[in-house]
Amino acid sequence: MAKSRFEYVKKFEQDDRLLPATWIVIRLDGRGFHKFSNAHDFSKPNDERALALMNKCAERVMHDYPDIILAYGQSDEYSFVLKRTTTLFSRRASKLMTTVASCFAANYVYHWREFFREISLLYPPSFDGRVVVYPSVEILRDYLSWRQADCHINNLYNTCFWCLVKSGKTNDEAEKLLSGTLSGDKNELLFSQFKINYNDLPEMFRKGTIIIWQEVIETVTKTCKSSKEDDFPSERHVQRKRKVTTPLHTDIIGDEFWLEHSRILDN
Amino acid sequence: MAKSRFEYVKKFEQDDRLLPATWIVIRLDGRGFHKFSNAHDFSKPNDERALALMNKCAERVMHDYPDIILAYGQSDEYSFVLKRTTTLFSRRASKLMTTVASCFAANYVYHWREFFREISLLYPPSFDGRVVVYPSVEILRDYLSWRQADCHINNLYNTCFWCLVKSGKTNDEAEKLLSGTLSGDKNELLFSQFKINYNDLPEMFRKGTIIIWQEVIETVTKTCKSSKEDDFPSERHVQRKRKVTTPLHTDIIGDEFWLEHSRILDN
Amino acid sequence: MAKSRFEYVKKFEQDDRLLPATWIVIRLDGRGFHKFSNAHDFSKPNDERALALMNKCAERVMHDYPDIILAYGQSDEYSFVLKRTTTLFSRRASKLMTTVASCFAANYVYHWREFFREISLLYPPSFDGRVVVYPSVEILRDYLSWRQADCHINNLYNTCFWCLVKSGKTNDEAEKLLSGTLSGDKNELLFSQFKINYNDLPEMFRKGTIIIWQEVIETVTKTCKSSKEDDFPSERHVQRKRKVTTPLHTDIIGDEFWLEHSRILDN
Amino acid sequence: MAKSRFEYVKKFEQDDRLLPATWIVIRLDGRGFHKFSNAHDFSKPNDERALALMNKCAERVMHDYPDIILAYGQSDEYSFVLKRTTTLFSRRASKLMTTVASCFAANYVYHWREFFREISLLYPPSFDGRVVVYPSVEILRDYLSWRQADCHINNLYNTCFWCLVKSGKTNDEAEKLLSGTLSGDKNELLFSQFKINYNDLPEMFRKGTIIIWQEVIETVTKTCKSSKEDDFPSERHVQRKRKVTTPLHTDIIGDEFWLEHSRILDN
Repeated sequence: MAKSRFEYVKKFEQDDRLLPATWIVIRLDGRGFHKFSNAHDFSKPNDERALALMNKCAERVMHDYPDIILAYGQSDEYSFVLKRTTTLFSRRASKLMTTVASCFAANYVYHWREFFREISLLYPPSFDGRVVVYPSVEILRDYLSWRQADCHINNLYNTCFWCLVKSGKTNDEAEKLLSGTLSGDKNELLFSQFKINYNDLPEMFRKGTIIIWQEVIETVTKTCKSSKEDDFPSERHVQRKRKVTTPLHTDIIGDEFWLEHSRILDN
Repeated sequence: MAKSRFEYVKKFEQDDRLLPATWIVIRLDGRGFHKFSNAHDFSKPNDERALALMNKCAERVMHDYPDIILAYGQSDEYSFVLKRTTTLFSRRASKLMTTVASCFAANYVYHWREFFREISLLYPPSFDGRVVVYPSVEILRDYLSWRQADCHINNLYNTCFWCLVKSGKTNDEAEKLLSGTLSGDKNELLFSQFKINYNDLPEMFRKGTIIIWQEVIETVTKTCKSSKEDDFPSERHVQRKRKVTTPLHTDIIGDEFWLEHSRILDN
Repeated sequence: MAKSRFEYVKKFEQDDRLLPATWIVIRLDGRGFHKFSNAHDFSKPNDERALALMNKCAERVMHDYPDIILAYGQSDEYSFVLKRTTTLFSRRASKLMTTVASCFAANYVYHWREFFREISLLYPPSFDGRVVVYPSVEILRDYLSWRQADCHINNLYNTCFWCLVKSGKTNDEAEKLLSGTLSGDKNELLFSQFKINYNDLPEMFRKGTIIIWQEVIETVTKTCKSSKEDDFPSERHVQRKRKVTTPLHTDIIGDEFWLEHSRILDN
Repeated sequence: MAKSRFEYVKKFEQDDRLLPATWIVIRLDGRGFHKFSNAHDFSKPNDERALALMNKCAERVMHDYPDIILAYGQSDEYSFVLKRTTTLFSRRASKLMTTVASCFAANYVYHWREFFREISLLYPPSFDGRVVVYPSVEILRDYLSWRQADCHINNLYNTCFWCLVKSGKTNDEAEKLLSGTLSGDKNELLFSQFKINYNDLPEMFRKGTIIIWQEVIETVTKTCKSSKEDDFPSERHVQRKRKVTTPLHTDIIGDEFWLEHSRILDN
């Protein structure tokens, strides 16, 4: 194709390939989701439909980019971990994060109706993203622990906050009551005032969602036409392995999960 | 809010603030739009609905981020120019490009039906993005000229190609016939074989779409209730200025456009 | 040449080419020059020999890299401005700054004796460097103004400080006396207590040193042997232009210098 | 200290902190050392004095920056490995590489005379530098193996080349004779034509120089004056540990070295 004399402007693009042999993490955050969740009347402190939609989007992203070995989501954020040796988009930071961010956001609108039924999407949301590389498995695990600890801390706080607000406190009063309280205090408050045992709340709220690839064995029915024309076609049941994304709501801070799923971080 | 011992992983994020006092350009490209346009049966070489949807998305992005002073789109790509002094997202490259990419993609799905009516969106598209800074007005203009020249080159080629294919040639035959031809040859081919004067084709196809902000004066009707209770409410017509995004299909390679809209690149 | 299986480690190097069409500035700073100047008994507040040696090193660097169009130095620092279009080292930041830093430091040791005579160099100094790009002439000039303003501010302070110390004050007393004083106060102090008119001090101390390239016309004597063997060789005086580095001590904050030397920042 | 209105230009400096928890390697390369070695009449293929001077400079750099845990040098290049957790210069790439490069170059001039005696240094050399981070011990070791393999490949070639040239071949002839030869061919050539068993050549030429820190126990004599005035001062011999830089010429590609010095890469 012909080229113009303006072609030189391409030289201003900077090479942003990420350090090889490191774990690439792309994290998305919903932009203005406080306003968005109010506008769409999300249940507080957690809206199951909204979380399920986030999970759906993350699974769609993983299907498009199977080099994502694990995703972790909570609230309005999702982190995607690429395998250490991935060469997806030549590891170019811009391509990686914009593709994942736009794919996620487009899926959010596309699948909205499956989760929110008759509730109209008033405007399309957007997500900002960033990409970070981690040089070792230990630090990568600390990253994921950081997000899950954050999920716990926020969820415990929000659970208390909304119990207080629903019981008649103003937002300011609830905030003041919780200010300076420790984890134990909040558990106690939930139990004594609201008869809620925090640990009985759904794991998805307390732990967030981990999505991994798991192998399933499918039985597929194959219809084989005989070579002889007048024979009936025969049917055969064939088993085959397939990888599917699997959402889990479990602890990823301790070792147990990683021992059980040790191949995830294998190279 | 409490902090965990995992907090240190934040230090692995790298500062990606763009050079101050430069023109920031964010360009999005549709991913796999060849397949996408086939799947949705886009008219070739140009689908007016698809282009109009792209323009709509670009306008929505501009409304969300008024520091975008100009956008230029053609085919499945869109470029957004931010004002030289913008401090949007502290000029952080990641935030800028992921937000724009996800906002654009979400709008694409959201507004699909307005343009494609009964044609279902089979799957959500995604867009990759990049961000480049240009140090001077001259080079920024060369960037935009580069994209518009590219629009022209591709459109002339595609117009010929699809005329040939629609007239019965195979794709390969059409490709071979066009191989090595110059601009003049292609104009001649269109005219002699297909009675098409290239310059009569819609400007949106030949020049792409430039979106700028323009001031409009609106007349708003205000109803004023008089202080005296039994009076009729009076009506007043008030004029006010408002900035609206305006799509144009015109040449931006020459000086004329920039002289007419000189304030766009003013600081 | 044969290649080893370890070659892949080269891929971890990152491309650090600087934005084209911008002004590249490399600034060096002496490391630990407070200690270094004490160890070598530098005159305070300014040591002419030390400044002259710095200037010499800067001129040597300019001779090695003629794409440096201007250098500015004061105290233990030097800034080098490369022409906007330079492709020296393909504009790679690392190559540029390490080469300039090591060249400067090696020259410092090499030329020491010319300036410090019998005073031994007790240990070799080192310099840290950085590279910054500026998108416009205005901002580049502001960079240079920043360094010259810094020279003035520091020199005025140091002149007062050392007058006070030489007059019998302790360092702490001198510091306290100067704390919070404005420029006018310091000028007054110098004049009233020490009979020093600040503006009469050498310009090199007050303005620092600007080094630029200037054309000189040299007269060279050429000896031409005649073709006839027994003739006397004839002598001819030939004039030729040559560019030489020229140190100046003048104001570069105002416009005058730049008007006079307008071709420096021309492209 | 007062600040000027030009201060804003500092914002154009970009944050270049290197990824935490990675191995930082700074490599210096002599600039124009082919010419430099000819100008100073270096012995070919190896000049012991020049190599010893390089090693001296590397040791001086290590003394100044004890976070350098290992240095590897050959020919006119030197690599410095910083400990994984170093926070030297806040891990800023520019500071790290310019300081090391300028420190090395200044030492080269400073110590020249110790190694080259009456041979004058005709002009000061310079070194370019780069900084690379490696995420794991394995890859860091591969980096060092790469440099040592390079040392071997070049030295074998150069040994052959200079034997041929000294035996009367022109440079071109020698080059042609060696073109396409394998390692075995070159060993054979040295042995059959020049009675040189390559493996008997000095290890410094064949393996380069590794510098590490080793603990030595020093006996220091302390003179203690008794409290009683007329007593003789007593002498005491005190043993104390001290870390010293130690140059080695040994294989670092295999495991043996690393098993013996396992604490070097420990964290």
